[in-house]
Order: sequence, then C-alpha cells, then structure tokens
Amino acid sequence: MACSQGEAFVTLATNDSYAVGALVLAQSLRIAGTTHDLVVMITPGVSQGMREHLGQVYTMVHPVDVMDSKDEAHLAMMTRPELGVTLTKLHVWTLVQYSKCVFMDADTLVLANIDDLFEREQLSAAVDIGWPDCFNSGVFVMQPSLATFHDLVAHAIEKGSFDGGDQGLLNTFFGDWGTADIKKHLPFIYNMTASSTYTYLPAYKQFGKGVKVVHFLGSRKPWHYRFNAQSKNVEHSDGAYAGELLQQWWNVFACHVQPKLDPWVVEQCI
Amino acid sequence: MACSQGEAFVTLATNDSYAVGALVLAQSLRIAGTTHDLVVMITPGVSQGMREHLGQVYTMVHPVDVMDSKDEAHLAMMTRPELGVTLTKLHVWTLVQYSKCVFMDADTLVLANIDDLFEREQLSAAVDIGWPDCFNSGVFVMQPSLATFHDLVAHAIEKGSFDGGDQGLLNTFFGDWGTADIKKHLPFIYNMTASSTYTYLPAYKQFGKGVKVVHFLGSRKPWHYRFNAQSKNVEHSDGAYAGELLQQWWNVFACHVQPKLDPWVVEQCI
Ligand SMILES: O=c1ccn([C@@H]2O[C@H](COP(=O)(O)OP(=O)(O)O)[C@@H](O)[C@H]2O)c(=O)[nH]1
Ligand SMILES: O=c1ccn([C@@H]2O[C@H](COP(=O)(O)OP(=O)(O)O)[C@@H](O)[C@H]2O)c(=O)[nH]1
Ligand SMILES: [Mn+2]
Ligand SMILES: [Mn+2]
Repeated sequence: MACSQGEAFVTLATNDSYAVGALVLAQSLRIAGTTHDLVVMITPGVSQGMREHLGQVYTMVHPVDVMDSKDEAHLAMMTRPELGVTLTKLHVWTLVQYSKCVFMDADTLVLANIDDLFEREQLSAAVDIGWPDCFNSGVFVMQPSLATFHDLVAHAIEKGSFDGGDQGLLNTFFGDWGTADIKKHLPFIYNMTASSTYTYLPAYKQFGKGVKVVHFLGSRKPWHYRFNAQSKNVEHSDGAYAGELLQQWWNVFACHVQPKLDPWVVEQCI
Repeated sequence: MACSQGEAFVTLATNDSYAVGALVLAQSLRIAGTTHDLVVMITPGVSQGMREHLGQVYTMVHPVDVMDSKDEAHLAMMTRPELGVTLTKLHVWTLVQYSKCVFMDADTLVLANIDDLFEREQLSAAVDIGWPDCFNSGVFVMQPSLATFHDLVAHAIEKGSFDGGDQGLLNTFFGDWGTADIKKHLPFIYNMTASSTYTYLPAYKQFGKGVKVVHFLGSRKPWHYRFNAQSKNVEHSDGAYAGELLQQWWNVFACHVQPKLDPWVVEQCI
C-alpha cells in the first residue's frame, strides 16, 4: 500500500510561458524557506528543455495528458472540449502519494513562508474579489483522493462550469465554502490580486505588509512585461504598489531563473 | 425603563442629495414588504422640506448633530474633524429603543425582502471587494448600546480610522470579523456592489438572480445620472447589467418618490 503522508505545493504549466511562471513560483517558495515538496504538472506543450529546468527546482515534474489518458477526464474532454486546462488542473487530486497539497497558479509569487497552509483542511481558499461568495481557485488547500477526482470529473461532465474554468467548477462542487466554516476562508494575504493595491489603497497600506502571496490574475502576466536588463527594472504603467510587486517577480526571475535558462527560451517565452 | 425590543432599518443623510437616496431606499424596503421600522438619521444639512418628505415614509426622522452635541463624539470631532460623517454614522449605536438594527447606506437599493437579516448578530456584514479581509460598512447588522457607542468613539479618538471613514474604524473595532464566525459573513447578495455585474460576469449570470441589495458604492451615485422623463430611461454608459440596476433605482424614484417631491427639490438635488 502506498504511504501518503507527505505534503506538497503543486502548480500547473501547459506551455513554456506558464512554465517560466512556475520556475519563479518555485524559487519564491524556496526563498521563503519551505520544507515541502514542490510538484509541477505539465502537458505535452512544455518543451523538453523547459522540463529539465523545471526538474532542477521541482521535486517532481509530473506529466498529465488529458487527451492521452484513458480515464473519465479524457471522456469529459471529448464532451466538453472547452474544459481543457480545467480538467488538467483537477489532476492534483490524483497525487495520492501526498496526504495534502496546496495548489498554486503559475502566476502566483510567494513573499513569505506559507507552510502553515498545510494546517488547513480541504477546501480552503481565499475570496474571489469578482464575486466574493466564490473562492478564487488560484491558491487552495486540498486532499488528494481518486474518489474525489472521479466525482469532480463526473460533476464536470454533468454540470459543466459556469465560468468555463476550474474556478466555476470547484465553486459549485465545494458549494458550501461560503457558508460552512470560517477556517476554510484563507485570509486575503494568502492570495492577493495585484490590482487590490489600488482598489482600496488605505487597506493595502494598512495590511499590505502582511501579504504572503501575490496573484497576477488576468490576461496580463508578469512575463508579458518588458524587463530592462541594464537597469534591472520592469517597465510598466501600473500603479506604484502594483509595480513594486511586478518588480519583485522580476527580481526573482533575474536572480534565480534567468541565469539558468537558455537565451532562446527567454526570448520565446517572455 | 425603556423597552428595547423592536428592530429597525436605519440609514443616514447629511444633505438633500443623500436624502433622495434615503427616500428611494425606504420605498424599496417597503416594496419588498418589510414589517420593520425605518429610521433615517439626519444632520442640519437636510432641508425642512426634505425632512417632511422623509417623515412620510420613515417611522422616525432622527436628528443627529455631532457638532452640537455635548458628548464624546463632539470631542472626537474637535480632535479629528475629518471623521465627520463617520462619527455621525456611529450614532446608530445610540438608538437603544431598538434591540437590533440593520444599517444601510443611503446609496443602497433593496430588490427583495431582507427581514431575515435580523436573525444575525452584531457585527454581521458582507465582504468589501477592495480588500476582502475587511467588511463593507454599507450594510451591517448591529445592536444598539450606549456602552458600545462610547467605546467606538474612544476608539476613534485614540486610533482614528485607517481609511478616514467609518469602514476603517469599524473594521479595526470589530477586528475579528474576518476570522471568528462565518455567520457574521453576510452573503454578497445582501450588499452587492453594482460594479460586480461586470468584474466576474459569469458569476453574476449564475448568482445575480439572487441579489437582494445593490450598493452604488463610489463617487458616482444613481442621482448623479440623467433621467429621461419622457422615455423613463436613465442615461448611462455603464455595462448592460449595471445599467439595469441603475434603471431599477430610477424606476423606484420615478414611481414612488418624484411624484411627492417639489420640482425644485428634484432640480437641486438630482
Ligand atoms: O494556458 C494556460 C492557462 C492556464 N494554465 C495554468 O492554469 C492557471 C490558471 O490560469 P490563469 O492564472 O491564467 O488564470 P487567472 O488566474 O488569470 O484567472 C495558470 O496559473 C497556470 O497554472 C496553464 O498552464 N496554461
Ligand atoms: O456627504 C455624505 C456622505 C455620506 N453620507 C452617508 O454615509 C453613507 C456612506 O457614504 P457613501 O455611500 O457615499 O460611501 P461609499 O459607499 O461610496 O464608499 C452614505 O450612503 C450616506 O448614508 C451622507 O449622508 N452624506
Ligand atoms: Mn492565475
Ligand atoms: Mn455607500
């Protein structure tokens, strides 16, 4: 019988750009002194070279190919092709060698140790500021289980996802998150959207020092900005505080990721 | 000894414009069939004519003049003049003839009966989407108490408010709201910011039917828009759903408020 006692941070990358995000995330976790395993789930869209880079910082590079697999996820994919990345993300529930995982989007950056998240139960997550009765699925604590995986996939086939992504699906599956248990509500500082630095600036000034995880949610990711290799500054027209967070992402990239990457990777994915 | 068993919805208006908001709010509460008392706290900035209009729909028009009073609030006002409206709002805690109140900003609109809010305890409120570890102080359930009022004013004098308003003050005073009791987290549908119709549109489409209270938070209030008296349509460049909510505010205004107002009031305050 497999022993499932370890705990891991898990992310997902389906291409080399998100893989760069995953490299920065992993380095930021290590800088913050985590003692836990780091797992990246990848799909065939991630190049061989990038897999090797990922392998240098991740405990495990775990290929997940929904299209290739013979399980229900593949079936779901046939009926609902729009759920591509969503169904891939759900594979975190198949990591049953771990007793608990914290899933983190590849567009998150860790600023302080968050190992205490493993004291929380499934499903713990922070509010989504777009509709705060829902949780944001960029950071969540979960418990791997094949039974849950199968239930989730069945749920996806039957009900789909109200937003077409994993967040809609997970919010209807874990539908009592909003009302059941305050301990499953992670403080916002564990998944702060970068835009919240300006939507309620006095609150950011009051509580921003405590932020542990920044989430660069939305279509513009940190790796879409231009970085000035001379000055080491990221070019942006975002607000001052949002810019500071972007800069922190790029600092990790420049110090800990870029030196190990082939120049062509940097050119193609950044 | 005064008997404090009733329950009331309470709002605040310091001028005739916010008083128009208060008139629409009260009508919307009545349309939704509330059986509770309605109280509006007013300051000297509200005209005599407007007081009479308010008196026709509110159970009680309650003058509150921080500058004139001889209590700690007045003292606080001297030390921290920026807390003007904030300290006025706190006077809801002095309404000890009621055992429980629901405070509602004058820029809120009720779409469905919310009398069930009186089953909640102090301090219940919905998340503020700007910084969701804080609650939004536009709708909250509270229990009048002179002791609490004095504590709040002392807190205001000593610590001020991190955002200069009542929301910052109340969030530090009721500092365990974020972590203590899920029942004190009102669902977002009890205080939905109008802008949330477009920030996460799929969620609004999924859950928007359930919205009970809309909050027109921000500097642009419903009464700042132009209303076409012929077509009965509000002119706006907001998103479709936000426009629909604006229209609902104006429908209440046009049917239930405007017919009773003097034309000059409409001209001056709208
Ligand atoms: O093309 C994609 C889109 C998403 N993702 C993964 O799915 C997560 C969620 O997507 P994203 O962060 O872009 O969504 P947002 O947080 O902006 O809503 C990403 O962080 C990645 O881990 C990916 O690998 N490839
Ligand atoms: O000049 C003012 C400002 C505010 N208010 C009252 O205080 C509430 C909070 O202010 P507002 O709604 O403008 O703040 P927001 O919700 O936009 O942050 C209002 O709804 C009114 O009830 C008032 O009477 N006069
Ligand atoms: Mn993300
Ligand atoms: Mn308001």
